[in-house]
Amino acid sequence: MNKGIMVVVSGFSGAGKGTVMKRLTAKYDEYALSVSVTTRDPRPGEEEGREYFFRTEEEFQKLIDEEGLIEYAQYVKHSYGTPRAYVEEQLAAGKNVILEIEIQGAMKIKEKYPDTMLVFVCPPSMEILRERLTGRGTETAEVIEGRLKRAVEESRGMDQYEYLLINDDLEECVDTLHNMIRSERLRASRNTDFIEKIQKEAEAFV
Amino acid sequence: MNKGIMVVVSGFSGAGKGTVMKRLTAKYDEYALSVSVTTRDPRPGEEEGREYFFRTEEEFQKLIDEEGLIEYAQYVKHSYGTPRAYVEEQLAAGKNVILEIEIQGAMKIKEKYPDTMLVFVCPPSMEILRERLTGRGTETAEVIEGRLKRAVEESRGMDQYEYLLINDDLEECVDTLHNMIRSERLRASRNTDFIEKIQKEAEAFV
Repeated sequence: MNKGIMVVVSGFSGAGKGTVMKRLTAKYDEYALSVSVTTRDPRPGEEEGREYFFRTEEEFQKLIDEEGLIEYAQYVKHSYGTPRAYVEEQLAAGKNVILEIEIQGAMKIKEKYPDTMLVFVCPPSMEILRERLTGRGTETAEVIEGRLKRAVEESRGMDQYEYLLINDDLEECVDTLHNMIRSERLRASRNTDFIEKIQKEAEAFV
Repeated sequence: MNKGIMVVVSGFSGAGKGTVMKRLTAKYDEYALSVSVTTRDPRPGEEEGREYFFRTEEEFQKLIDEEGLIEYAQYVKHSYGTPRAYVEEQLAAGKNVILEIEIQGAMKIKEKYPDTMLVFVCPPSMEILRERLTGRGTETAEVIEGRLKRAVEESRGMDQYEYLLINDDLEECVDTLHNMIRSERLRASRNTDFIEKIQKEAEAFV
């Protein structure tokens, strides 16, 4: 049990994924948060290497050509991808690598790396999510409708995930996720080397 | 998430399963420990309904005929089985039911009830187990050899289990098992009703 595991966290926009991930990585040092690379421009307050690595179309294409991304996808007119080097370094160092990505990327990663753990974050109720998405009456009807449509899309994919994580209380949610990942690492299928070692040692008994 | 789950706990004799189960059920009230029925005679200190329910061959056969056992097996010349009524009552009451049984029974239960969670308890090292099994020099060579052979048998089945639980420190082991069971209950495949509810509520957004 020395190599870490990859954990994909998806879920409803507005379910508080980002806050949970920040708290998880601050509270426990066995996690590393993967930072995506994108071709879109930074928004005010975003920092290179914190929210995203910001790259040009050419640089992004070069990453693809060099197999430097473990998955990538295009949304609207911009590209997003997960840099391979960081993920592999952190796994080798025994960290569990958290990838906060959307369902298309999640499914691509699961196909390529079947050992990836898939977690879907839900709000405590859809009524609470609807209230958050409709906002405080400051957004246009169009913006709100877009958000609600997106939530419908997101809900359709949730049965593709392995675990559900309800985000009601932040600390409780973080600890539940932490325990979930620790338990997942104790699956027999992830510890075949250990099982073989025990079996060999037992065979030597007689 | 109202019905409990069945958890089969097997593992090496001498790995401390019994102590872990006693502490788990004493520490958390969401567990119920299934008590097996047997045709063998009580040993000194054993109590009806605590270690086992002690029944005659005829009573045992009647239980089988009435489908009162969820699994049963014969070891040497005695029969052992798991009474159905208690398991079903406790699951309906939301308790997780722990069944401490051997591999043959474990596999039969998993086949009949695929939702059963399978946990295998290991000692921290096989050297520690060997020391425990060879005892303090008070047993005959035959008794010791029997125990070691049994450990070899037990080790051969461990890859049939879903989770490994290392029993090093008792409290840590109990909490790890508790977290494992809680996490298992958050599997998407165990919460299809909840997923459908969320999806329906989301569809109503637009």
